Formats: sequence, structure tokens, C-alpha cells
Amino acid sequence: MNAIDKYDARARAINSLVCVGLDSDLEKIPKAFRRERSPQLAFNRHIIDATAAFAAAFKFNMAFYEAEGAAGWRQLAGSLAYLRRQHPDILIISDAKRADIGNTSAAYARAIFSELGVDAVTLNPYLGRDALQPFLDYKDKGCIILCRTSNPGSADIQNLPAGGRPLWQAVAEKAQSDWNGNGNCMLVASGANPAEMTVIRAIAGDMTLLVPGIGAQGGDVRAVLNAGLNSAGRGLIINSSRGIIFAADPAAAAAELRDAINAQRS
Amino acid sequence: MNAIDKYDARARAINSLVCVGLDSDLEKIPKAFRRERSPQLAFNRHIIDATAAFAAAFKFNMAFYEAEGAAGWRQLAGSLAYLRRQHPDILIISDAKRADIGNTSAAYARAIFSELGVDAVTLNPYLGRDALQPFLDYKDKGCIILCRTSNPGSADIQNLPAGGRPLWQAVAEKAQSDWNGNGNCMLVASGANPAEMTVIRAIAGDMTLLVPGIGAQGGDVRAVLNAGLNSAGRGLIINSSRGIIFAADPAAAAAELRDAINAQRS
Repeated sequence: MNAIDKYDARARAINSLVCVGLDSDLEKIPKAFRRERSPQLAFNRHIIDATAAFAAAFKFNMAFYEAEGAAGWRQLAGSLAYLRRQHPDILIISDAKRADIGNTSAAYARAIFSELGVDAVTLNPYLGRDALQPFLDYKDKGCIILCRTSNPGSADIQNLPAGGRPLWQAVAEKAQSDWNGNGNCMLVASGANPAEMTVIRAIAGDMTLLVPGIGAQGGDVRAVLNAGLNSAGRGLIINSSRGIIFAADPAAAAAELRDAINAQRS
Repeated sequence: MNAIDKYDARARAINSLVCVGLDSDLEKIPKAFRRERSPQLAFNRHIIDATAAFAAAFKFNMAFYEAEGAAGWRQLAGSLAYLRRQHPDILIISDAKRADIGNTSAAYARAIFSELGVDAVTLNPYLGRDALQPFLDYKDKGCIILCRTSNPGSADIQNLPAGGRPLWQAVAEKAQSDWNGNGNCMLVASGANPAEMTVIRAIAGDMTLLVPGIGAQGGDVRAVLNAGLNSAGRGLIINSSRGIIFAADPAAAAAELRDAINAQRS
């Protein structure tokens, strides 16, 4: 069972395509947690407890832990250990957006898959295949390659015309045809751009897509579902970070997103 | 004095364009250091002591520290503190290849510039300008944007035709015209591709280039200098990592690279 199977099993079991993004920025978490000795860990345990019932995946954005140095790294590792212990059936994603030359990518893969023990990682395609290969070689792990991101400047490079189609299409094609030999590739496809998601779905077959840009970033759930569901009626990992974890009631926010999604796929 | 000025001053003072890459992979450092309590820190202090006289810059590849978890992060921070204390005039580069959506990039910028306190960082352009902006906003720091990398698969994406020229050219143009408002942009230009470096130099004016692919990766020093020197006879940060730090005599290897470079620019 690889990372994608793990996600599918969990998504079926709880009837949810929701991913809760633990962007636990120390400057933004509630004051009550900031008084704790390990504030990010305490906050994450709270959010995991509150939202796990609705979560098919949790996504940890590495930046918010690295910003706190070694202490942040310890709290990230502690949060991951807690999540694995409490909920071994929930997919864990490291949102790291890594890629480097071969021997360096191998060290990142070791850091993320072995040292941190997560199931899947986001990767940047700019350096090409051999930068991705050390990650792809972990057959049981998931490699989620940036294709079309949800930030305002994503068009700067991703929309450049690359041989008759935008660059993000070329990336989707390479992921589908060249990089998915182990069947462990996924793609990042912005929830703010459903029309482009339709194209990505047509290129990528039933490949699973990680969808940022829902919730705080404003994407339209209905349009995303219409564009992105695969032939099994799944194939989407729909992430919301700030919209859930900083909501007045995180459990309610996660349940609401699950229900909004499920209303469009019944 | 920004990061680029700092590099230029050091390069002039010691007549060297050498950057020593501290890719201190725990599995590759000599056994004597692996017995230490903080093996990466002990090894880095040894290499810094041996090679600083020839180094205009040191570059820390984040992957090899992250692979050791919180302990690796502590040793990275310890190495940086040692270097700043012993050699405050040497440029310190974090080879992190980061970029993410805005609020996340801001956290990475805080991690790297504030928490770790380095002078410059390598960045990936795939997400576009707003992903780079939080780094660019640190006016005194250097932002080294991946343009043409030195790995075998770099052509997969970087050489795709983007509106009549390869993508890496489009990135160089954007860095020069759009992203350099604070005068703190640099570019990564592979030392394994001197012909392409000539084009990058033509696009980027006197912009400083970080050059990987020399030493263990086999680039030709003479061709690189011919292609890449700017109008001041500098403008290149020529990195060697494994070729220096894992040499039998790291000081001799650093001196040899400095001399090989200087022989071509006298």
C-alpha cells in the first residue's frame, strides 16, 4: 500500500477529501498556546484532536517550523509522532517544495521520508527529473510535483509558453509520461484555477491532485470538484490551512469543508 | 553594504572568487569526526579553519543538516555562529532553493535570514515573483535565483522553449528586469555550461553569478571565467563542495582552485 492507496483508503473510510494544513505560524497561533513550552506542538495536538475525524490528510508546511530553528524542528517531529500514533491511517504530507541536484535531493528525501517519517512530499520541478528521482525511488511514498500553484505570481513562470502550451502543462505531461514509473506521482493543481485543473485532469488521467487555494485563498469548491474529480469520484486532496486551523471552531470549519465538498460529489 | 558588496569586498581583499560548499553529509565526513558529539559542527569548524584564507564565501547546503533532524539544525546554527565570529567578512550562503506562496515564503525568509542569520539564499523561480518577494524585501541580503543548474536533468524543464528562447533565459531576463529592484538579485549559472553562461552574462549585465558544477562536477575553470567574468573582472562566486571538503588536504584544494581561477583573470 503506497501513500496514494493510504489516502484513498482513508478518504473512503471517512467519506472526506479534506486535508488540514498545519501552517502553525508561531506569530498567529492563539495566545493560550504561545505560553506553552512547545507552543507549535501543543497547538498541533489541539488541532489534530479537533479535526482528525474530518481529515483524510494532514499537511505540514515546513517553513513555519524552520522559522523557529531547532526548537521548531523538534516540535514538527513531535507533532508527526503524535499524529502517527493517534491516527496511523491518515496521510501525512510534508509541504516542503524541495528539489536539488541528485546527492542533495537524496539527503532531503532522507530528511523527509526517513528522519521525519512522512508519507508524501511536495516537490519543485524546475531542476528536472534527476532532482526528483531520489524521492521517486521511495516507492511507497508520494511525490507531489508543483504544476500550477495558487499564488498570484504563479503565472510569471508557469504560464510561459513552452512549445505551444503553458509550462505548467508541460510539467503535467512529464509527470504523467516520464516521472510516474513507480506510480507514486501526484500534482499540485491550484483550486483558484478550475479551468486549468480541467486540463491537468485530462493530461494526468486518474492521478491524485493536491489542491491548495481553497478556504483562505478563496477557491470555489463546486468548480474545483467539477474540474478535478477522477473516474473513481476522488483523486483530489483538498487542502485548507488558515481557514481551518485559525477558525474560531476548527472542527466545525473542517466539517463544513468536508460537507461542501461532498455535496458536489454525491 | 549589502550581501553582494560584502562578497566583492572579501573577494578583493583576499584575491579569490572561491566559495567553499559545506555539504557536510554525515555519512561522508571522515570517521574521526563521526565519533564527536556534534560531528557536522566539528567537521565544519575544521574545514572553516583550513580553508577560510582562500574563501570569499561559504555555502551551507541545508539538506545535509535537515537529514539529521533537530540535531542537524543545531549543528548548522553552531557552524554559522562559529563562522560569523571567526570571519565576519566572509559571505555566508544558505543553499536552500526555497520558494513558496507569500506568507510561507515570508516564514522561510525569517528562518534563513533572521533565525540562521545568513547573508544570501538560493531561491527557485517556478512559483513566480510573489514567492520571491519576501526574500527580496530584505534589502541587505542576497537572493540567488536558480537560472541554469548543473545537474544532468536540468534541461528537462529549464531548456523548454519559452517564447523563442529557453526557459532559463526567460528567468535571467525576469531577474534582471523585474526582480532586482533592490539590487540584491544574483543568479545560479552552471559551470558545466559555459556557452549558456555567456548568454546569461549578456542578459544580466554585471549581476553576480553563483557557479556550481566546478570541482567534483567537472566544469572547466577557463571556459567559465571567459564566459562569466563581469566588467569589474569579478561577478562570479565559484563553488566547490565535495572537491574541497572531502579532499585529502582541503586547504590545498581550496588554494589550488583559487589559483586556477586567478590564472585566468590576470
